[in-house]
Amino acid sequence: MSNFIKGHWGRTTVENSKKPIVAVDIGGTKFIVAVVDNSGQILSRSYCLTHDEQGRARVIARLTEYVYKTVKKAGLNLDGIGGISLAVAGIIDINRRVITEAPNLYRWKNVGLASLIEDEIGIPAFLINDASAAAVGENRYGSGRGIENMIYVTVSTGIGGGLIIGGKLYNGYSGSAGEIGHMIIKTEGPVCNCGRCGCLESLASGTAMARMARERIYKCNQDTMLKEMDVNAITAEDIAAAARKGDRLCLEVIDEAGFFLGVGFANLVNIFNPQMIVVGGGVAQMGEMLLRPVRKSMKQHAFKLPSTAVRVVKSKLGSDAGVLGAAAYVRSIMEEEE
Amino acid sequence: MSNFIKGHWGRTTVENSKKPIVAVDIGGTKFIVAVVDNSGQILSRSYCLTHDEQGRARVIARLTEYVYKTVKKAGLNLDGIGGISLAVAGIIDINRRVITEAPNLYRWKNVGLASLIEDEIGIPAFLINDASAAAVGENRYGSGRGIENMIYVTVSTGIGGGLIIGGKLYNGYSGSAGEIGHMIIKTEGPVCNCGRCGCLESLASGTAMARMARERIYKCNQDTMLKEMDVNAITAEDIAAAARKGDRLCLEVIDEAGFFLGVGFANLVNIFNPQMIVVGGGVAQMGEMLLRPVRKSMKQHAFKLPSTAVRVVKSKLGSDAGVLGAAAYVRSIMEEEE
Repeated sequence: MSNFIKGHWGRTTVENSKKPIVAVDIGGTKFIVAVVDNSGQILSRSYCLTHDEQGRARVIARLTEYVYKTVKKAGLNLDGIGGISLAVAGIIDINRRVITEAPNLYRWKNVGLASLIEDEIGIPAFLINDASAAAVGENRYGSGRGIENMIYVTVSTGIGGGLIIGGKLYNGYSGSAGEIGHMIIKTEGPVCNCGRCGCLESLASGTAMARMARERIYKCNQDTMLKEMDVNAITAEDIAAAARKGDRLCLEVIDEAGFFLGVGFANLVNIFNPQMIVVGGGVAQMGEMLLRPVRKSMKQHAFKLPSTAVRVVKSKLGSDAGVLGAAAYVRSIMEEEE
Repeated sequence: MSNFIKGHWGRTTVENSKKPIVAVDIGGTKFIVAVVDNSGQILSRSYCLTHDEQGRARVIARLTEYVYKTVKKAGLNLDGIGGISLAVAGIIDINRRVITEAPNLYRWKNVGLASLIEDEIGIPAFLINDASAAAVGENRYGSGRGIENMIYVTVSTGIGGGLIIGGKLYNGYSGSAGEIGHMIIKTEGPVCNCGRCGCLESLASGTAMARMARERIYKCNQDTMLKEMDVNAITAEDIAAAARKGDRLCLEVIDEAGFFLGVGFANLVNIFNPQMIVVGGGVAQMGEMLLRPVRKSMKQHAFKLPSTAVRVVKSKLGSDAGVLGAAAYVRSIMEEEE
């Protein structure tokens, strides 16, 4: 695939591409730092809350601190590290190495995070979209191992995606391909975090499920276990827990989100005709409870040939998909450049 | 790219791939037969009405007759032909060489057209989706010449598409990739020919424009030049003609269709981040009158990075895109097999 980041990896050597990589998966709530070796083994791992509200400088300082910590935890020092891979939930310009937009991390708009981290730590850093990284992870080590044409969809606070075409990450012309969550499927739908209406994310993410539950409680006064808690603080996790106990409102909310997710999948299936869709992210932990209505709606809204061909499966790597994929991606760039 | 039709081209030789190809573009209204040489020159060309209502056998007989005629017109005989490429507006299973569904050519569902034509004419035949063929044509010889990541969208009676990734046609896992017209963008939208609701085709095709015009006349009693004609027989061409004369209703209809087409393009741009979208088909003859509202809506509904990067342009080859691409596609398969 073309459009890989090139030209700023002055120190790349065959040796570097074999060294462990520090992979960082930066989300709105927390970040994960992992040192990943050549074979995809995680040598050490740390978690830290992002606390985006404290401002960028403090987040970068904390991130740097955790990189050092995690490298040390792996029994290594920076000389032993081949590079840093930063996976971020945003629209990445891979040529300029800038986060151009980030609906769920808005302080990071137009930030050249890779350069900032390079300046702090002194080893080459790369930027990648977090869902694209997870797509690479699942394709290399997870549910989609060896699949040539695959789509990874992460459903959590937001919805993201990554495309694998011909066994490789497809970045598109500027590096921002895969923004599945902002596919508009209902032009008169609810307002999304991105400012538009009726995006898949506004209809099927964890945030959307919480909104649907609140609406059913306030507008329809429907009965539910959720009334026992602070209704304004309901999360997709609460909905899943209540649904498992048979709560009707929560089962309906999951069905509704599954319906819309299935419409989005149908669009992807009609356009891409992929062999597999891997569903990851926190909300995907609901498993079949969510995937069953998704598959039903997908088959209803897509042509028979591609919707029969595709397998919709749960992610295997869970929250490690991002760091594993981010590391594998950087390694593939280093190998291409050599 | 994987998934090219393989294994049934027993007689393929280096010699065959250099010979002229007979390309047939089969639409709901008419079909075009062309003999195309190695350099993309059309040596001879014939048009004929499809008359699908007469049944498949008669259509195939007429098609065969026109193949012989057009080959003769080029001063050739069948020994001089490398193969036949059949471009059809339907969901093609390239492995089984079957039209699995065809919303606008419903008599052709589950027909193994390539085998039928091979039996009739005695030279190897291939099936390809018509919009995929046109995508190859525009990429090889038209507006998208040399573009690595490109989407071709045809807007006519229906809406179809083809994806060029890494300079090659992307077929997907079963060969049906590119069904852009049946991307759902308004879950509660009008019923589409495919039986679902709110597909791009139901909101932005020539058929959709005619429906919008009729609705505005009947429901809103809006003033328009179109009232002078049989309102039930209005076509997109009539709308374009009246709009050029400043007819307000018609301009509004084009703006509305352009808005929805722009939503569809925004989805493609967010997901694919292509370098170019080439718009072909009869309705695209409206040119900037349609493309202006399309670009505006696309930029409004997509992220800035990919929507700034993409160029939305009109097809250069017009109705020749299908036959030129169908021929180039078959040639590329023959060359791959050698």
